[in-house]
Amino acid sequence: MLSFSSHFLQKSFYQDAKDFNEMLESLRKEMDGDEVGYYKLPQNSKNLLQKLKSMDTDRFSQVVIVGIGGSSLGIKAINSILKPITTHAKEMIFFENSDPLTISENISKIDKDRACFFIVSKSGSTIETTSIFKTLIKHFSLELNNATNIYVITDKDSYLSKFATFYNIREFNIPHNVGGRFSVLSAVGVVPLYAAGYDVESILDGAAEFQKSFFDGHENHLLEKANYIYANSNKENINVVFSYADRLENFTKWYVQLWGESLGKLDEDGKHVGLTPIGLIGAVDQHSFLQLIIEGPNDKSVTFINIEDFKNSLSIPDITLHGIEQTDFINKQSFNKLINEQCKATMQSLIQSGVSSDTITLDEISEKNIGAIIIYYELLTSLIGKVLHINTYNQPGVELGKQILYKNLGSN
Amino acid sequence: MLSFSSHFLQKSFYQDAKDFNEMLESLRKEMDGDEVGYYKLPQNSKNLLQKLKSMDTDRFSQVVIVGIGGSSLGIKAINSILKPITTHAKEMIFFENSDPLTISENISKIDKDRACFFIVSKSGSTIETTSIFKTLIKHFSLELNNATNIYVITDKDSYLSKFATFYNIREFNIPHNVGGRFSVLSAVGVVPLYAAGYDVESILDGAAEFQKSFFDGHENHLLEKANYIYANSNKENINVVFSYADRLENFTKWYVQLWGESLGKLDEDGKHVGLTPIGLIGAVDQHSFLQLIIEGPNDKSVTFINIEDFKNSLSIPDITLHGIEQTDFINKQSFNKLINEQCKATMQSLIQSGVSSDTITLDEISEKNIGAIIIYYELLTSLIGKVLHINTYNQPGVELGKQILYKNLGSN
Repeated sequence: MLSFSSHFLQKSFYQDAKDFNEMLESLRKEMDGDEVGYYKLPQNSKNLLQKLKSMDTDRFSQVVIVGIGGSSLGIKAINSILKPITTHAKEMIFFENSDPLTISENISKIDKDRACFFIVSKSGSTIETTSIFKTLIKHFSLELNNATNIYVITDKDSYLSKFATFYNIREFNIPHNVGGRFSVLSAVGVVPLYAAGYDVESILDGAAEFQKSFFDGHENHLLEKANYIYANSNKENINVVFSYADRLENFTKWYVQLWGESLGKLDEDGKHVGLTPIGLIGAVDQHSFLQLIIEGPNDKSVTFINIEDFKNSLSIPDITLHGIEQTDFINKQSFNKLINEQCKATMQSLIQSGVSSDTITLDEISEKNIGAIIIYYELLTSLIGKVLHINTYNQPGVELGKQILYKNLGSN
Repeated sequence: MLSFSSHFLQKSFYQDAKDFNEMLESLRKEMDGDEVGYYKLPQNSKNLLQKLKSMDTDRFSQVVIVGIGGSSLGIKAINSILKPITTHAKEMIFFENSDPLTISENISKIDKDRACFFIVSKSGSTIETTSIFKTLIKHFSLELNNATNIYVITDKDSYLSKFATFYNIREFNIPHNVGGRFSVLSAVGVVPLYAAGYDVESILDGAAEFQKSFFDGHENHLLEKANYIYANSNKENINVVFSYADRLENFTKWYVQLWGESLGKLDEDGKHVGLTPIGLIGAVDQHSFLQLIIEGPNDKSVTFINIEDFKNSLSIPDITLHGIEQTDFINKQSFNKLINEQCKATMQSLIQSGVSSDTITLDEISEKNIGAIIIYYELLTSLIGKVLHINTYNQPGVELGKQILYKNLGSN
């Protein structure tokens, strides 16, 4: 279960309650239409899961993902969070970057006979992905024809799809109307996470339940938050997610892509608009970034994410050390309590310092909670995109760099 | 060797060449004074290194660091970068956060008989550090009296220093006038990195050489950059470091602390000032954050860091895959070339889009280059702090949260 609280200090909401309803309806209209497909994933991916039941996953113990951006960030986020509670989960190895040292190091971790390879690219021609795939084919002498240890996840009719058809390699498709950064609940996340042994059905259930609750009008705090962020977007244009759990670091990276790539756009009038996402980890970043939030410019709002029950009883021993006796007041407390008290104290210090904040509390680490917080952020992003009057779902700004690269490397 | 280029587009420099000289002189005065001590570390830590020669490091194969913020980020940064070229380096295990899952996981990695423990805290009473230390003492039944597998790194006369004296544990001190985030070239970094097998002398040499070159007037690009960032700090108030190498991720986290905690301050007039640091990794974040830089608000400047020669010849095989033949143009190129061309293309796309950028190129991964880029960023931070008229070296904003925490946890 997720619970929410907020301390939005500026109180400069743009719209009244009646308009909240309009915001909800405009999103419902988008959900019911054909242009934006991610809303239907929590339901439709259940059918996909049924088809996966025939997949013999016992054959392998390593799940290798070749993908970058939306083709890896969501999978990594879920893997990091659920691994500690999924004892039978298989090792996942991610090839993302074109960094030669990382590729070489990752190759050395792979046991070819135990590994299953997932090649993930929505467009089907991502240069990092295809280059690394070729490298793996050569290094491990992978047999392509009728391969049973290679799976392709891509758009229908993409180049990579044609490749899969030619070599008779099993292929899963991403709906055309689901963008990369909104695709984690499509085949992109569902297939490899199922293969790795995760309870994907519960992730989808958690997302479906939260989405239903939102459209049933029971999550109006989300409308309030979208409205607040929009209304203060000129002043508080940096949105920090401060997660109090190390394992949420990859989730914050997923958030950074979702937020930055969706909301940084030229608007209808050609004006540069956008909100800058930053991911922090508590308590570590209390010793780094916090000073800037408190005493720097008032250009940030902060969302805390914390986990109520880590299901871990590790406690600070009741030991007195000569010299540092003054730390004894914390003896016998659990680290679970310490990190949550640190979150609470940081939040209180922000409130006293006039920084807007809100909190999302996960009662525990669970598949349902992960599904819920994923759809929470996707819905929030869509809501803000709507009121900013931008196209939330494209990314035209990255094309120029690609063109320059291809030209410099001699592509025709 | 480091080389530099810049494309500062706004051209709104604040001062003329004569004033560059004043900036340099004001820093020289700070260096020659007693208040800010980091300038003297490249020289003084050489003496410390001599004393370490008697340390028998062959006894252990794991270096365990218990420290957070400035007591871990710099060590992690150097370890990540130099590990691939230091084949004999020992395993380093970092305990930073109060996250119970991470602490439990890290404990399971430690082999007590092969491990050496470094307890690092400038103040000597950091709550995360002392709590984790107590946990390790209990879990591994560590003998404290005359321990030869425990080292303490802290300020002279701190609580932790008194602890070390009481139990006769070997202690190294951080100069009083060196703040945590400027301390990586003090005992904080020097001792554990030496123990782990790194060539610390060359790191110090690289820092000393760059610092001398700067004060000899041969690195005026640094004055120009500080001036540019300051003059445009109201408009371009977010400073992105875009590193094209996975192993620089921890370096960008070190940069984020240095920049954010030093430059986010109330100024002499009580006004909130500051510059927001963001660390990105290329090419991965081309698929995430880049869209926002290109089409979002013009509030960012970007510094690219790239490595000319990764000393890795991994190449894209000359394979044609049916369906994706259009990616063949890149066959036979090395990944080293690909990632550098990606950096170059992204930089060119920023220039064409009107985003200010500059580039720092490391000719290779080397100890000297790491030392140089560390002191480069420390000097740059000091320069900007000077012109912003703030105290670059304190962090008063984080105290409130600590007070609230201690009160909530029942400390007297």
